[in-house]
Amino acid sequence: MKHPLANPALEQLFLNARTYSGFTDQPVEDATLTALYDLLKWGPTSANASPARFVFVKSAAAKAKLEPALSEGNRAKTLKAPVTVIVAHDLAFYDQLPTLFPHSDARSWFAGNEALIQTTAFRNGTLQGAYLMLAARALGLDCGPMSGFDNAKVDAAFFAGTTVKSNFLINLGYGAEDGVYARNPRLPFDAACRIE
Amino acid sequence: MKHPLANPALEQLFLNARTYSGFTDQPVEDATLTALYDLLKWGPTSANASPARFVFVKSAAAKAKLEPALSEGNRAKTLKAPVTVIVAHDLAFYDQLPTLFPHSDARSWFAGNEALIQTTAFRNGTLQGAYLMLAARALGLDCGPMSGFDNAKVDAAFFAGTTVKSNFLINLGYGAEDGVYARNPRLPFDAACRIE
Repeated sequence: MKHPLANPALEQLFLNARTYSGFTDQPVEDATLTALYDLLKWGPTSANASPARFVFVKSAAAKAKLEPALSEGNRAKTLKAPVTVIVAHDLAFYDQLPTLFPHSDARSWFAGNEALIQTTAFRNGTLQGAYLMLAARALGLDCGPMSGFDNAKVDAAFFAGTTVKSNFLINLGYGAEDGVYARNPRLPFDAACRIE
Repeated sequence: MKHPLANPALEQLFLNARTYSGFTDQPVEDATLTALYDLLKWGPTSANASPARFVFVKSAAAKAKLEPALSEGNRAKTLKAPVTVIVAHDLAFYDQLPTLFPHSDARSWFAGNEALIQTTAFRNGTLQGAYLMLAARALGLDCGPMSGFDNAKVDAAFFAGTTVKSNFLINLGYGAEDGVYARNPRLPFDAACRIE
């Protein structure tokens, strides 16, 4: 029997967690990025397909490669962030299914079905992007997700000649509290949910 | 300064968390569903747009309405689950932006841009579906997500005459340990990630 997590954990994951534009100078070690993946990878995906691919943009050279794709409002903060994660997905994800879902011929459900491939890659890659953000918060990191950038430019710079396509970006680091905006409201339960 | 959550919390959220097909008879109270929403709603979405809409299918009448849309392999377990969540999104989400993102005219970024509306609703509604699953685990609940169903039938049965579209389903309850499969492998770090 599982129990609810204690309130400080709920606060760190959801209640007090915020989107950060600015981060402290504390670097994010490569070992932290592998620990992050080793948490998020366990999140559920359809047929365990795990279509997400992640590029951790950390070096000055890689940031320079990313820069032309960023929208004006996201440029400065992204160049300064300790790490920017490119959340992407591999449209050839189904080639891994004989390994990832060995008890069925799941590869055959996808091969040649372009609409199902696109939807499955986007939906499940996005789920994995959310798992990354919550795993990051669970590890004491802070996130700044963004969709304001040129996907085609990111794909050309980072995924040329592959079947990998960018989805969204997440700045990652240890958040600087002074740059956090006042929190915007959320929809009340009755506006977003119903129980039938 | 935030710290990593203690290992039992990481286990409950990711390391030991599993997808469940079967659940105990313990019901999921309506108060638990509102507590669930009051956690997940704080997860980040683009321009705080919060496009997800959730139907908590709980009554026998609502389960009967859902049944014809379920794929054969998902039918029996879904009818037996204490709650099935329809994760959906409202394509008119941008009408809420004057309230949800009051400091900019964010509504005008979307109105009339059908491709951006579709992508934003699907991406961010999916993120919110992932937040729901991790919030559920944080509250001691277990999940069984599924995309094997007929979206058009769900939309006709639950969202006729609206701008709301179904995305995926999540069975929700307190997991029965005896129905859990052996865990499938995940991609190693180097197959899914790179650090640049």
